[in-house]
Amino acid sequence: MAEDESKGRKILVAVDEGEESMYALSWCLSNITIQNSKDTVVLLYAKPPLAVYSGLDGTVYLFSSNIMLSMESYRNAVAEGVMQKAKNLCSQHSDIEVEAMIESGDARDVICGAAEKLGVDMLVMGSHGYGLIKRAFLGSVSNHCAQNVKCPVLIVKRPKSTAENK
Amino acid sequence: MAEDESKGRKILVAVDEGEESMYALSWCLSNITIQNSKDTVVLLYAKPPLAVYSGLDGTVYLFSSNIMLSMESYRNAVAEGVMQKAKNLCSQHSDIEVEAMIESGDARDVICGAAEKLGVDMLVMGSHGYGLIKRAFLGSVSNHCAQNVKCPVLIVKRPKSTAENK
Repeated sequence: MAEDESKGRKILVAVDEGEESMYALSWCLSNITIQNSKDTVVLLYAKPPLAVYSGLDGTVYLFSSNIMLSMESYRNAVAEGVMQKAKNLCSQHSDIEVEAMIESGDARDVICGAAEKLGVDMLVMGSHGYGLIKRAFLGSVSNHCAQNVKCPVLIVKRPKSTAENK
Repeated sequence: MAEDESKGRKILVAVDEGEESMYALSWCLSNITIQNSKDTVVLLYAKPPLAVYSGLDGTVYLFSSNIMLSMESYRNAVAEGVMQKAKNLCSQHSDIEVEAMIESGDARDVICGAAEKLGVDMLVMGSHGYGLIKRAFLGSVSNHCAQNVKCPVLIVKRPKSTAENK
């Protein structure tokens, strides 16, 4: 591990509103990042695209500018909340350098794009990233990323006992 | 990482004839296993089921006992060869404890079953585990395992430059 320790690794961790991604981050911090190394954890949150929302029946809804503004404000608040929670977890590992990225778009495109652009050494994510219905049609975000991202991908599931307790 | 260092982790690495799984093992040894820890790497090779072979058109072929014996002998030689190559890679990390498992069956069932039975902390595998045609119908082994195994799953792809050089 000498080579990696000397230059430090860049580890991209995709976070979202779900507890599973926070569990994935915690697991990564405890099991992957190396203490007293130059490892950098890049926290990435993908804000869902705002312009067009479609219903289950395929109907496309366009909103007025006022509604759009308050939706954007809500989206930003959610993004900030997720990022703050993730940073708090990282702060328990004071020797890890942390960067934060918030990007708009489909989670699958955002994550794959960021992994490519940043040239990260590893991508870490929870196994859930969509609701049940969307996942049934589109496949999971993690499956998509595991297939399309070039770097190693670590998919972390939250153990059931932990999930039930929270 | 104090907790993990004290008890050591059990990391299951699925290996097969492909260079990609050997790359995944190397990557794991360099980036995941902790030097001077009590980590154990369990090498797992799944021998394809022998009894029945089916053709692309769905025809099922049953072989005579002589042919079966020589096929079994060939399968064992391949399994031993893969395991030896994997052990050689591990021997470059002398502080890592290594165990080896060879089991017969569909790779997807064997890997998921072993991860469950051994209660491993992590599963590591290459992203390819089937030929192109079988993968198109069945999905990749790694996707299946990522969906069905409870522990964190690390999927490692061989970089194209490495793949081209070998």
